[in-house]
Amino acid sequence: MNNDDKKTTLRMIPYGLYVLTADDGQGNIGAATVNWVTQTAFSPPLLVVAVKVGSSAYTVLKASGRFALNVLGKEHKAVAGAFFKPAVVADGRISGQAFTAGANGAPLIEARIGALECKVTGIVEQGDHHIVVGEVTEAHLAKPVEGRADMATLHMRDLGDNVFYGG
Amino acid sequence: MNNDDKKTTLRMIPYGLYVLTADDGQGNIGAATVNWVTQTAFSPPLLVVAVKVGSSAYTVLKASGRFALNVLGKEHKAVAGAFFKPAVVADGRISGQAFTAGANGAPLIEARIGALECKVTGIVEQGDHHIVVGEVTEAHLAKPVEGRADMATLHMRDLGDNVFYGG
Repeated sequence: MNNDDKKTTLRMIPYGLYVLTADDGQGNIGAATVNWVTQTAFSPPLLVVAVKVGSSAYTVLKASGRFALNVLGKEHKAVAGAFFKPAVVADGRISGQAFTAGANGAPLIEARIGALECKVTGIVEQGDHHIVVGEVTEAHLAKPVEGRADMATLHMRDLGDNVFYGG
Repeated sequence: MNNDDKKTTLRMIPYGLYVLTADDGQGNIGAATVNWVTQTAFSPPLLVVAVKVGSSAYTVLKASGRFALNVLGKEHKAVAGAFFKPAVVADGRISGQAFTAGANGAPLIEARIGALECKVTGIVEQGDHHIVVGEVTEAHLAKPVEGRADMATLHMRDLGDNVFYGG
C-alpha cells in the first residue's frame, strides 16, 4: 500500500470538532477534543466516537459507561485547542471552561452549540483508538439553528489549511 | 428527550459521500451510497462505516469480509444519487457506472476521487444500521489533490440545503 495515497484518501473524510466528556462519580472527570465521530443508526439513535486509548476521556467513560459529546460551533476554536491538551479540573471548571452536569452526570460545557448525552452500548477494542458505541439518551440545543445544522459546527478545516487528525 | 433537539444536534455532524461496494466472488455485487463514515485508528488504519441492515451492500460485504469505500468528489453528485437506489449490475456496469476490481475483489467505480479497500475486522450488530469496522488494506488516489483533501470530497450539504441522512 502506498502510504501517501492512504493518508490523502483518509483525509478526504470531513470532520467536525467535539469535546467528549465523562465523569465517573468518583471525582474523576475526563475531557478531550475529538473528531472521529459518526452517527450509526436511527433506531435506536446510535453514534460512534473513536477515543485514544489511555486518554482521560477514554478511562473515565469506560469506567462510567456514560459520556457527553459537546458539539463546538464556529465561535469555539479556542475551546477545541484547550481540549487537545490533557484536561485539568480546577475552580469548578474543566480546562478553563464552565460546565454543568448532564442528566447522565457527564459534563456539558457551556461553550457548545449542542450536546448529546450517551450511554455506552459497546466498545470495539481495536487499534490505537477504541471504537466507543453510544446510544443517545438526551440532547441539548444551545439555541435554535438557522440554516443547515452542520454549517454551524466547527469543522477541522476551520482550524487551518494544514490541520488534520486522520490519514 | 426532545426529539427535535436530538435530530438537530445529530445533524450538526458533517458528512462526506461515498459509494460502498462489495463482491462475494459468487456473482453477487452490492453497492450503496453511504455517509456514516469515520476513521477510528491510525495504527492499524481502521475506519467505521454504518451500513443499512438488509441492503445489498451489507449482505455482500458480510459474506465476503471485504469492501471498498469509493470517495465521491464535487463532480459526482449524480453518482451519489444513482447509488441511493438498489444497485443494478448490467452490461459490466453497476448502476450505470464503470468499475474495475480492487486487489481485494471489491468494485472500484471509475467515478471517484479516491478509494480505500478494507477487510472487515468486526461488525457491531446494533440498530437499524450495523457498525462495520474495516482495516484499510489498499488505497487509490484518482489524481493528486490540490489543497485540503476534504474539500475535494462531495459533502452532504452539496446535495441541497435540506438534504440530510441522520438525526
